[in-house]
Amino acid sequence: MTGSSARVSDQTTQHDLLALQWPSPPRNILFVRKDDDTAVHDALIEYTDHIKATYPETNLVFEPYVAQQIHDRFSFPVYTVRESGSNVPYHAKVDLTTTLGGDGTILHAASLFATAKSVPPVLSFSMGTLGFLGEWKFKDFKRAFREVYVSGHPSVLPSKGGNADVTDGGSGPRADSMTGWSNIRGKSMGSSRSSRILMRNRLRIGLFDTSGERLPHEPPFAHQDNKCEDIFALNEVLLHRGKLPHLAHITILIGSPPHQRTLTTAIADGFLVSTPTGSTAYSLSSGGCIVHPLVSSLLLTPICPRSLSFRPVVLPANTLVTLRIDELNRGKEIEVSVDGVRRQQGLRAGMEVRVVGEEVRTQGPPGTRDWMGGVPSIVRSGHAADGEDHWVGGLNGLLKFNYPFGEDG
Amino acid sequence: MTGSSARVSDQTTQHDLLALQWPSPPRNILFVRKDDDTAVHDALIEYTDHIKATYPETNLVFEPYVAQQIHDRFSFPVYTVRESGSNVPYHAKVDLTTTLGGDGTILHAASLFATAKSVPPVLSFSMGTLGFLGEWKFKDFKRAFREVYVSGHPSVLPSKGGNADVTDGGSGPRADSMTGWSNIRGKSMGSSRSSRILMRNRLRIGLFDTSGERLPHEPPFAHQDNKCEDIFALNEVLLHRGKLPHLAHITILIGSPPHQRTLTTAIADGFLVSTPTGSTAYSLSSGGCIVHPLVSSLLLTPICPRSLSFRPVVLPANTLVTLRIDELNRGKEIEVSVDGVRRQQGLRAGMEVRVVGEEVRTQGPPGTRDWMGGVPSIVRSGHAADGEDHWVGGLNGLLKFNYPFGEDG
Amino acid sequence: MTGSSARVSDQTTQHDLLALQWPSPPRNILFVRKDDDTAVHDALIEYTDHIKATYPETNLVFEPYVAQQIHDRFSFPVYTVRESGSNVPYHAKVDLTTTLGGDGTILHAASLFATAKSVPPVLSFSMGTLGFLGEWKFKDFKRAFREVYVSGHPSVLPSKGGNADVTDGGSGPRADSMTGWSNIRGKSMGSSRSSRILMRNRLRIGLFDTSGERLPHEPPFAHQDNKCEDIFALNEVLLHRGKLPHLAHITILIGSPPHQRTLTTAIADGFLVSTPTGSTAYSLSSGGCIVHPLVSSLLLTPICPRSLSFRPVVLPANTLVTLRIDELNRGKEIEVSVDGVRRQQGLRAGMEVRVVGEEVRTQGPPGTRDWMGGVPSIVRSGHAADGEDHWVGGLNGLLKFNYPFGEDG
Amino acid sequence: MTGSSARVSDQTTQHDLLALQWPSPPRNILFVRKDDDTAVHDALIEYTDHIKATYPETNLVFEPYVAQQIHDRFSFPVYTVRESGSNVPYHAKVDLTTTLGGDGTILHAASLFATAKSVPPVLSFSMGTLGFLGEWKFKDFKRAFREVYVSGHPSVLPSKGGNADVTDGGSGPRADSMTGWSNIRGKSMGSSRSSRILMRNRLRIGLFDTSGERLPHEPPFAHQDNKCEDIFALNEVLLHRGKLPHLAHITILIGSPPHQRTLTTAIADGFLVSTPTGSTAYSLSSGGCIVHPLVSSLLLTPICPRSLSFRPVVLPANTLVTLRIDELNRGKEIEVSVDGVRRQQGLRAGMEVRVVGEEVRTQGPPGTRDWMGGVPSIVRSGHAADGEDHWVGGLNGLLKFNYPFGEDG
Repeated sequence: MTGSSARVSDQTTQHDLLALQWPSPPRNILFVRKDDDTAVHDALIEYTDHIKATYPETNLVFEPYVAQQIHDRFSFPVYTVRESGSNVPYHAKVDLTTTLGGDGTILHAASLFATAKSVPPVLSFSMGTLGFLGEWKFKDFKRAFREVYVSGHPSVLPSKGGNADVTDGGSGPRADSMTGWSNIRGKSMGSSRSSRILMRNRLRIGLFDTSGERLPHEPPFAHQDNKCEDIFALNEVLLHRGKLPHLAHITILIGSPPHQRTLTTAIADGFLVSTPTGSTAYSLSSGGCIVHPLVSSLLLTPICPRSLSFRPVVLPANTLVTLRIDELNRGKEIEVSVDGVRRQQGLRAGMEVRVVGEEVRTQGPPGTRDWMGGVPSIVRSGHAADGEDHWVGGLNGLLKFNYPFGEDG
Repeated sequence: MTGSSARVSDQTTQHDLLALQWPSPPRNILFVRKDDDTAVHDALIEYTDHIKATYPETNLVFEPYVAQQIHDRFSFPVYTVRESGSNVPYHAKVDLTTTLGGDGTILHAASLFATAKSVPPVLSFSMGTLGFLGEWKFKDFKRAFREVYVSGHPSVLPSKGGNADVTDGGSGPRADSMTGWSNIRGKSMGSSRSSRILMRNRLRIGLFDTSGERLPHEPPFAHQDNKCEDIFALNEVLLHRGKLPHLAHITILIGSPPHQRTLTTAIADGFLVSTPTGSTAYSLSSGGCIVHPLVSSLLLTPICPRSLSFRPVVLPANTLVTLRIDELNRGKEIEVSVDGVRRQQGLRAGMEVRVVGEEVRTQGPPGTRDWMGGVPSIVRSGHAADGEDHWVGGLNGLLKFNYPFGEDG
Repeated sequence: MTGSSARVSDQTTQHDLLALQWPSPPRNILFVRKDDDTAVHDALIEYTDHIKATYPETNLVFEPYVAQQIHDRFSFPVYTVRESGSNVPYHAKVDLTTTLGGDGTILHAASLFATAKSVPPVLSFSMGTLGFLGEWKFKDFKRAFREVYVSGHPSVLPSKGGNADVTDGGSGPRADSMTGWSNIRGKSMGSSRSSRILMRNRLRIGLFDTSGERLPHEPPFAHQDNKCEDIFALNEVLLHRGKLPHLAHITILIGSPPHQRTLTTAIADGFLVSTPTGSTAYSLSSGGCIVHPLVSSLLLTPICPRSLSFRPVVLPANTLVTLRIDELNRGKEIEVSVDGVRRQQGLRAGMEVRVVGEEVRTQGPPGTRDWMGGVPSIVRSGHAADGEDHWVGGLNGLLKFNYPFGEDG
Repeated sequence: MTGSSARVSDQTTQHDLLALQWPSPPRNILFVRKDDDTAVHDALIEYTDHIKATYPETNLVFEPYVAQQIHDRFSFPVYTVRESGSNVPYHAKVDLTTTLGGDGTILHAASLFATAKSVPPVLSFSMGTLGFLGEWKFKDFKRAFREVYVSGHPSVLPSKGGNADVTDGGSGPRADSMTGWSNIRGKSMGSSRSSRILMRNRLRIGLFDTSGERLPHEPPFAHQDNKCEDIFALNEVLLHRGKLPHLAHITILIGSPPHQRTLTTAIADGFLVSTPTGSTAYSLSSGGCIVHPLVSSLLLTPICPRSLSFRPVVLPANTLVTLRIDELNRGKEIEVSVDGVRRQQGLRAGMEVRVVGEEVRTQGPPGTRDWMGGVPSIVRSGHAADGEDHWVGGLNGLLKFNYPFGEDG
């Protein structure tokens, strides 16, 4: 039995945000942009020109088709990771990912690391509305990038710089470039406090055939990392009947054998397992709750279930959830999509999707690559020192959450 | 970067159930029963007769009004904790609570420990439908009690027994009664595996006036423990307009100063902050999600909000949630209830309810009193070794969760 | 078998709005205002000064307490209908009701006619947000009143005027004042097209004791009309458990004996039967659908039901719905409220609320008093000739109906 | 002003069920069965054998593919209506449709009359669970068919019978067969009260291209009736994004030009316009209300809308609802389905679906073919004389409507 009770008001809510601390400056910067948008394209050019001019030792990396579109625009070389036939995954090269677009662009960037257990930090910019995923306004890109670049280093000292080469297989910033912050041109642009990181947990997803063998990856995940057999999702995995005239029958089991137990069989248009991050995406449209990204959990949300009583369910993140295609689907294929990307080959009766929240370990600070699991999302800073800024702002700004109707009696 | 990925199918879902291990046999047993139910009353007599005959060293404890009703029924003394004027709280005396009734009875039993940070284990029996809180069927009471009584002790050795006295202020089983299991009469009744405990987290709730001072406790919480200033709830805290013709205006703030931030102002009949355990109670009626009791979280659920877009929200359990009575209520009192018990005095504009999930620490096994926080609920055992038994069973049996309609196309 | 099919595009949706046509100018004008609002009070003075100056033959009628507050403000006499002890109901005197406030004020005005089968037209003004009930902006009051006053009369001819006296018991405009439009001062203020009327159907509600006898009316309905035994509601009738710790058990029967049949027993905080007009009020907060006021129907909506599967139900308006207080409430009283006004005396087990949509007959135009049933609501006119104006506008403006979230993928 | 008010309890709820009265016995009986179900197949054989033996003057009509499967099973000729190349529609021949299967089979039968304004009565049997559409249990088929066959005729007199021929183009029972009931073999099987008919209203649906021209029908509707340009739906019309990665943008307009007005633009997986009959089908899965089939209305229900505030809407049945494919769909095709049958060719930006509740006129009794509009559904009779039987029974039996959870506090 313990002593006197602390007051509720004295208890400090943990921010659960991490501080980004690079051992040496990030070298290989992956730029991901929204397609088919002229304003975004122009912004990308302005952004990359600035980065190359101000941080000359950085290497600018693009997805191959983007590199092809823009390489003659630059006087400096640009890099790609995935040449055809190459098996070098993004996460073996990239130190920092930066996106230009909206939540969909961040989702696409995350998919490039869909087979990686350790994902580099993501710095996101939006041209228009700020989304749910903590984007910065593009007009702040100089300040934002600098803040990230020097994050965790109280003083910026002169240095010779390093010779990191994106093609040499190094998996992170070089040890010999500890003085790598020396070459930042121009004056200090303000305080160099650490960037704050929200570690977004993902789903770990495996597909299995009727005999319990793994189904092989399809493009675009086929060659990302042949060591990893699972795919990670930032938002959700979806099973859907697609064009079938009949509803999908999906049996949901929870727990691992021998403690596995049938929760229910969903008879529905589809079924979602989502992360808390995904709770404000498709799951929300389907009637799911809003779950804060720091609640360690999985969301089960049916899509148009043939039931009045299939209330959405939230499970602990470490629960193994198995979605088994039921025999009642009679050989018809059920579509499976991960973060909005549909697999070409559907699933037949007896096949399974096995989902569990990824394990996250953060012994060291993000940036040192000593953490495992999660997508380290750099949240925007501002006048408010409040870590909830972007989430509460998203609820009120994006969702028009709790908009009142009628007059006050 | 790490090595190869574990297979999803290989990951074992943690049961997150604890094993009950007494350092010595539980001595002071609190019996809580449903009122005004003859069958329950008769069952209580049968139950207590058996306990006293089989475990003669136990002391049978009742709430005062129950003791008054039944004391002449027994040939042995019965005890009460709360004599009038006494400040001795239940949790200073009781080793094990056992309930006879339904979920409402368990809720009432928990309320007897509403100011206690450490709650003794609860063994619950139901006469009828098995509820959500893990009740056993009453017909199994002999086996169940024995399983709990000997939990964690592989062999039952002879002993002299102790002299623990429920009136001596001891806060738990005596160290000198380590051989206390000797006196169990009759044959072994089967295996003596450990009882499994689901630790149910509670809300910690404080009420504050307009100047930030605590509001004093009202009965029945007034004298439970003058050291503790907060009240704990197993299910939920409710703010409600009661008989007011106008809707309540309640501003919801999250986080602790200086990081506190306004989430929204609910204009509604009422507002709930619930535990996951409470997610299948009032919150469910109000449209909330079903949250597994092991998801460390708080649920925010409005009651009849004047908004189309107030989707229920799930926050991390360690978030401080402040419900502030808004000035727009114009001096009218808003009712506040904890686990269904309404405070006589309502709250006026500017007053606050501050809620946070209680901290739970479980260094030692429950029963040793080395854990803090939570209501240790003994879950029923059965053929299935699966810890999810009662919860999945409750979903399907009690809620008629996902009952399908119509025919299959 | 018939000939060729008309094209969908050729079918004209019926507006189902009626045109207001007075046989003689409206004489007795009832002014109902929102209380405790200085801006509304000032607007009322401006409004009534204008009416008396421009339409000198009108009699200005107020509720007694309002008359008392403002009578010395005027140089002309004001009238009240309900002197103490008087049994003369509003609907025997009032030709036109005009309200100043919001939807709540219109609801209050309607309650003054809660025992009247024939209700005079209502012209409503709002100082702020336009509500759902078709209010006009107050700044348009001169044009609006004139449009209503001359509604249906293509030309305004000279006349001697009448001598109608609000105290003489006349139940409507006098036949001998057919030339009553002569005295309108000033120039024509524009076109004199007919005002359009949306006839809002009400609920007809009877309360019955356990032996099937009617329960007497309570104030404010006690003396409205001793000929009428039912009460009419514009929005809804509510049963609620109030402060009871237990949920209300309310059995819902549909149809009239001998064809009456039990639909279900609601176990809930409360239960609503609403009109389509009420579908955007309390029922909406409780999860009901939005039903257009011209769909002839009743809405059944539970409040926080202890069920996952109590989806709101819409029945034909001519269905007799009986809400019977179930024996399981054990003698506890269930509160009953009509349009937000709670009855002092609750209902006990075995008592019934019987509800049916009122019958509406509109042989003649509203204003001629040849119609029966419904509240004739004068809808605001504007640039759009569309009768749906105020309803679609209310959905989008007031409810923030279908506000989209997120970005477009 | 009128006299005293009728008591609520005295008002008789209209049953709104019609009585079936044949001018002469139904001659051409269309049998529609569920496919791929042996039990159903066997039942069909038993059923048709009985009909042919007991009512020898009837002609048994089948869909061509069914006729082909079973024609050699019979010693008597079977008929089909739709030979290849024939344009004779079902509704020109069939006097009575009878189905064997579930709600899906009834839906299919209704689709055979999807271009007919006047539909023959439908008598439905279920082998298993009774569905929402008023099916009879198959074991009662002899009694049910006889009741329908003689419906409206107090006495069954001898007669010569007629010579109606299903191939002679007659559109209904012959006038000269007024004595057609003479040949019923065997004893009277009980009372010959009239069968009761629930007239289910349908949607009238037209598809229009970007220039306002009608899109041609596709199979199976292409040749049903080249006089009718609209298609009728018993349950709903659905727009859906199908396999598109982006959400569908569908603008909803209500009213006819020039009074047409934009309600909103749905950004969603799909969008439904349903009949009240369809309210317990797909619309219910998507979150719609339960609407009694006699409420003259249309239901608008979004499917997974990207909005927290798109509450389902109920409009008057005579409202023209236009669903316009928005330009934001960027040339992608939106799928359109009528009662579950998907059109091969989707709709592109600017195209429209125009929907309105069909007009229903029932001057004469169904069976005389003097009614227009609606699907006359023969509801099962039973011990209860209550017309609500099947609907209330469906709610409670099929939907598990308002299944309570938890214990009673």
